[in-house]
Amino acid sequence: MPPTPTAKPAFLFDLDGTLIDSVYEHVLAWREALREMQIELSTWRIHRRVGMSDGLMVTALQRETGRKLTKEETERLKRLHSEAFLKRVAQVRPLPGARELLSTLSRLSVPWAIATSGVEERAREAVKILDVGPEVQLITRNDVAHGKPFPDLFLAGAKRLKVDINDCIVVGDSIWDLLAARRARALGVGLLCGGYGQDELVQAGAYRVYEDPVELTRHIDELGVQADL
Amino acid sequence: MPPTPTAKPAFLFDLDGTLIDSVYEHVLAWREALREMQIELSTWRIHRRVGMSDGLMVTALQRETGRKLTKEETERLKRLHSEAFLKRVAQVRPLPGARELLSTLSRLSVPWAIATSGVEERAREAVKILDVGPEVQLITRNDVAHGKPFPDLFLAGAKRLKVDINDCIVVGDSIWDLLAARRARALGVGLLCGGYGQDELVQAGAYRVYEDPVELTRHIDELGVQADL
Repeated sequence: MPPTPTAKPAFLFDLDGTLIDSVYEHVLAWREALREMQIELSTWRIHRRVGMSDGLMVTALQRETGRKLTKEETERLKRLHSEAFLKRVAQVRPLPGARELLSTLSRLSVPWAIATSGVEERAREAVKILDVGPEVQLITRNDVAHGKPFPDLFLAGAKRLKVDINDCIVVGDSIWDLLAARRARALGVGLLCGGYGQDELVQAGAYRVYEDPVELTRHIDELGVQADL
Repeated sequence: MPPTPTAKPAFLFDLDGTLIDSVYEHVLAWREALREMQIELSTWRIHRRVGMSDGLMVTALQRETGRKLTKEETERLKRLHSEAFLKRVAQVRPLPGARELLSTLSRLSVPWAIATSGVEERAREAVKILDVGPEVQLITRNDVAHGKPFPDLFLAGAKRLKVDINDCIVVGDSIWDLLAARRARALGVGLLCGGYGQDELVQAGAYRVYEDPVELTRHIDELGVQADL
């Protein structure tokens, strides 16, 4: 009997905090938006929520502050966050090794896509700094009914790549990525470069945790990719 | 034989990330200063260094970037960080429960002091938002030969309070506080409100980890303080 064939894996990347160094900008943009609406929340609590869909984030913030927002207030908060983030986007850099990781995968013909809870316009703008060209497979909040930690974004990514989700490796910096990966039945890999602690990522189900894209690339054999690095 | 008397504990608090919500301002101030000097370092790596003395931080950054700074460049970097922080200091708020915790301790006649790796001028400015009055016992980098994780700041704090360091509880948000507490032979208690992960604090020797000053106050009996909350 021949051995069970194992498909080559495909990669689904989160964007903020995974490929680009933008988490701290998002944290301060949310804080600015919240203060604009007279809502005070500790900065670290906002940090722990970045990476969720904006809608779920607002729900979580409401629970933590005990203040209920109307639909109009919620929309205003999201808009204020987007504006405050765009003011800071010029400060955002690619994370070390992100560009090289993506070009290595492309060279090895390993399929990959980017799946972010962010909205299309903001994500297109942010992806530019990765120099990946307009042909990049980008799945955003606009393509799905629910953001992370729902599995929708990663399921849509697998579909876009025409790869079984079971053969996909999800790479993300936040527990929301890892929870979404588990719900999607993909393998989740954590990165520390979004500023979360290692234990939070392991507890959320990370198969492996690396510091950043540089370290992931150096250990890519552990994820089943035969690279000639 | 009478039972061994146990002294009432005294508290030595870190400032940034423990009593005031200023860690993210420090992170971005360091990043701005580094970029001004054409040094690129991921934001999360800077975050993991906040709370060390400026001098040790610069040494650590040199190792991580592989670039050696001259004495003049080091002084310039520290100055740029201070300037960039002071630009942001108006955004800094007390952490939830910080003022109440300090006034509770004062009311109960539990001695407490603030011991920070920051320089005197910056610390005096930052302490103002805690409304503690000029009589606060504040130990800064200017009072000791070495900042955290050296034990000097906490040892000086105990001396100032005229309390045995073995009866002191050090409260801090970073592993540098907890390492300094261990070297000083004080009991270290961690807070999550600086944005570090729980495991990092426990691994660095935290006796207990609370979310923020509110949660610490609610559990202050666990630290040997009989409060009538």
